[in-house]
Amino acid sequence: MNKANILVASNRGPVSFSQADDGSLSLRRGGGGLVSGLSAAAAGAGTVWVCAALSEADRLAVREAPGGRLDEAGHDTGGIAVHMIDVPEDTFHRAYNTVANSVLWFVHHLLFDTPNAPAFDAAFRADWAAYRDYNGAFADALVAESADGARVFVQDYHLTLTPRMLRDRRPDLRIAHFSHTPWAPPEYYRLLPADIGREVLTGILGADEVGFLTERWADAFLDCCAAFLDAEIDHRTRSVSFGGRVVRVGVYGLGVDGPAMQERAAAEDVAERREALRAQVGDRRLIVRVDRTELSKNIVRGLAAYREFLTDHPEWHGRVVHLAFAYPSRHDLPEYRAYTEAVRRTAEEINAEFGTEGWVPLILQVKDDYPRSLAAYQLADVLVVNPIRDGMNLVAKEGPVLSQGGCALVLSTEAGAAGELGDDALLVNPYDVSETARALHAALEQSDDERKQRTARLADAATMLPPQRWFAAQAERLG
Amino acid sequence: MNKANILVASNRGPVSFSQADDGSLSLRRGGGGLVSGLSAAAAGAGTVWVCAALSEADRLAVREAPGGRLDEAGHDTGGIAVHMIDVPEDTFHRAYNTVANSVLWFVHHLLFDTPNAPAFDAAFRADWAAYRDYNGAFADALVAESADGARVFVQDYHLTLTPRMLRDRRPDLRIAHFSHTPWAPPEYYRLLPADIGREVLTGILGADEVGFLTERWADAFLDCCAAFLDAEIDHRTRSVSFGGRVVRVGVYGLGVDGPAMQERAAAEDVAERREALRAQVGDRRLIVRVDRTELSKNIVRGLAAYREFLTDHPEWHGRVVHLAFAYPSRHDLPEYRAYTEAVRRTAEEINAEFGTEGWVPLILQVKDDYPRSLAAYQLADVLVVNPIRDGMNLVAKEGPVLSQGGCALVLSTEAGAAGELGDDALLVNPYDVSETARALHAALEQSDDERKQRTARLADAATMLPPQRWFAAQAERLG
Repeated sequence: MNKANILVASNRGPVSFSQADDGSLSLRRGGGGLVSGLSAAAAGAGTVWVCAALSEADRLAVREAPGGRLDEAGHDTGGIAVHMIDVPEDTFHRAYNTVANSVLWFVHHLLFDTPNAPAFDAAFRADWAAYRDYNGAFADALVAESADGARVFVQDYHLTLTPRMLRDRRPDLRIAHFSHTPWAPPEYYRLLPADIGREVLTGILGADEVGFLTERWADAFLDCCAAFLDAEIDHRTRSVSFGGRVVRVGVYGLGVDGPAMQERAAAEDVAERREALRAQVGDRRLIVRVDRTELSKNIVRGLAAYREFLTDHPEWHGRVVHLAFAYPSRHDLPEYRAYTEAVRRTAEEINAEFGTEGWVPLILQVKDDYPRSLAAYQLADVLVVNPIRDGMNLVAKEGPVLSQGGCALVLSTEAGAAGELGDDALLVNPYDVSETARALHAALEQSDDERKQRTARLADAATMLPPQRWFAAQAERLG
Repeated sequence: MNKANILVASNRGPVSFSQADDGSLSLRRGGGGLVSGLSAAAAGAGTVWVCAALSEADRLAVREAPGGRLDEAGHDTGGIAVHMIDVPEDTFHRAYNTVANSVLWFVHHLLFDTPNAPAFDAAFRADWAAYRDYNGAFADALVAESADGARVFVQDYHLTLTPRMLRDRRPDLRIAHFSHTPWAPPEYYRLLPADIGREVLTGILGADEVGFLTERWADAFLDCCAAFLDAEIDHRTRSVSFGGRVVRVGVYGLGVDGPAMQERAAAEDVAERREALRAQVGDRRLIVRVDRTELSKNIVRGLAAYREFLTDHPEWHGRVVHLAFAYPSRHDLPEYRAYTEAVRRTAEEINAEFGTEGWVPLILQVKDDYPRSLAAYQLADVLVVNPIRDGMNLVAKEGPVLSQGGCALVLSTEAGAAGELGDDALLVNPYDVSETARALHAALEQSDDERKQRTARLADAATMLPPQRWFAAQAERLG
């Protein structure tokens, strides 16, 4: 088998499998900004994508593939070689659910209910050992697949230790790490056990280039290196001198691929849903939000803001509908089940309080329906994106790109996107329900002209660095 | 009535009242580091302490006192003039419970369960207006009581707006503000509504001198001024140029009054409890903690660490007792009731898991018994102070001062006291249960010699700046 010159490593790969009742496996190619961006950029000869098996069906597929190479097993992986790793289920659960999603994700998004969680006890140390194993399995696969001097692009908080492991074994490689999340400030990062906090930082610093979505997260990473490592930081050049090497920290603000989105949104399934939605909403104004039901997405406060807006502005009763997409997410974690229930309860309260015979003020949609989301983007008069903290948030960029009549964007200051879109969005503190309520009103009261002009500028900013160029810029910088 | 040259303002004053069944009021003089420190320093002619009525009995007493002056009404206020303010009950509840204790306290101690709280809605704005009124009532009283050019010492997070209000009305006054809490880092402080975050900072900056317990909290305050105000910060001299004035920020590490503590601990009631405790514990080693049941105090993780220690070290079974004082606190707030229940449940689990016929591994004491706490300090072999964040924590200082045979101190890095006591304590990350368990073991295994030497040094450090000198240093600096 030929070795690869470009490698991508991420927990979730570009393909996944499901198993039918008769035992047969079927392959699905994934969507999402990251997957499509990396796919486009990484397609071609000499490129391998290393990812983990996420389900039992994935594991079955991997076991039938020589060396984990799905493409070699005859699967249509979309023109990109895919090496899927069969991490033992218990190891994967500990590394993915317990360490990555319940600790590292929570740290970087400031999500902990600190009086009660986290508690780093003996059980957590076992989970951490599994996270190390999981990172090590990626390092093994990358070592096996990499040609001499290859460039390796390691993705996100699931894989913070892999860069260091790779460097120790393969100093010939050029390694990049990219964080798609925010980064915690030192005063919050320090709730991690001290040795683990350092292990994550030094793990990432195994890379030559460390990337973030915004300057704010890059600076927070530098602040953590200064606070917890014996490292020298240069904030001006964004570099870290550590262990005899200089690691550069870069900012790459992932945007959306406008033409590709437009093409997808022009399909028939979207048109059908747009007509159904228009019939449902009538000539009322439409406020839209599209989120996974993720603790950081702040759906409950967003709905509470809509409620306060309706309380303050009876003149809008009957003239507006809020369509809230809240897709299921991470239901393995009890906090997420409780949060989903809180979203549902709040929605019911709003409809009970304000709804009339002929008007349902809030439509909560919990079933994932991608073309319906795209239709909603097309029709939305107002788009609400109010996360308590978010690496970038691509919804804020997709909405303006697909808007047909102009869409006012209510945007959290804590979304990475606020840096690029802040001039033309209505910025809100995500904890400030009253401010968000006022922004909803201001958004609805914007003149058509102003809304259209702002939407055009938002769409321009949103497409400044589409996934292909985002990846190419990192590849170029890595040399 | 003569005007005062020195004034102290704090929510809780040096006296409080209770009402008997026959309607008669009886006065109680308060304890605590702050109260005793300020009392000693502020005693004498020309000094007035302004405080709030905290209960119905306090309000009755105030209404019978001319101009709120309890001393003028013939109450024995311990040689210090006391002006108690009759804030309306609803205003007090909103200002004290909702704003001060549920928002500002939570912000500075990083206590929020961010996905769910806080939510700054219309109801909160009404609470904030009450907080302004409450701060204004203090400003009114201080204006009325202050001689020309008087020095005014405003205390803590309950009274952040009072310094600015005072300055606007009485530019002749010299004003100090002191925070007894930590201060939030900017990335957490910014969850406050933007205008309110600025109002708090500019309110405090109405003072000439702004004081904190440690350099860490002072620096965090400077960072917030830099992030949220149009202010110039000089970290070297610790000063803030804002609104045409220069405000100095100082660090005053409040310590304990060794001789006074020794005298109190020599009383008969303490000796009785010491004997009872010795009989109860026998010749077993004794681990002690003394806390209000406050979310920041981290009692549950402390008990979990004791459990992990017992799991890891069966050789210590039957040879150690953990005496945990957890006094009731803030039971008006549902989070605190739930936390108290979690403490009780964890304690029961530990005794169920490890207890034997002749050995109760954990004694949880929830009834406040001050002389029994002092007796416990005298006998403790190990003192556990593991807050998730704490302005200073005087328990960590009181324990070593009263220890009779030497006491190893397990101390959180997040307590302000860690700065002064870190060299001779066993420092732990409060979220790291395993590290805390190891520290308990190391503390028990310390040789008697080492424990005694460390305790002596800890006691020296703890008494470096007793309340009287702490206050005098601030008064001197204010000029």
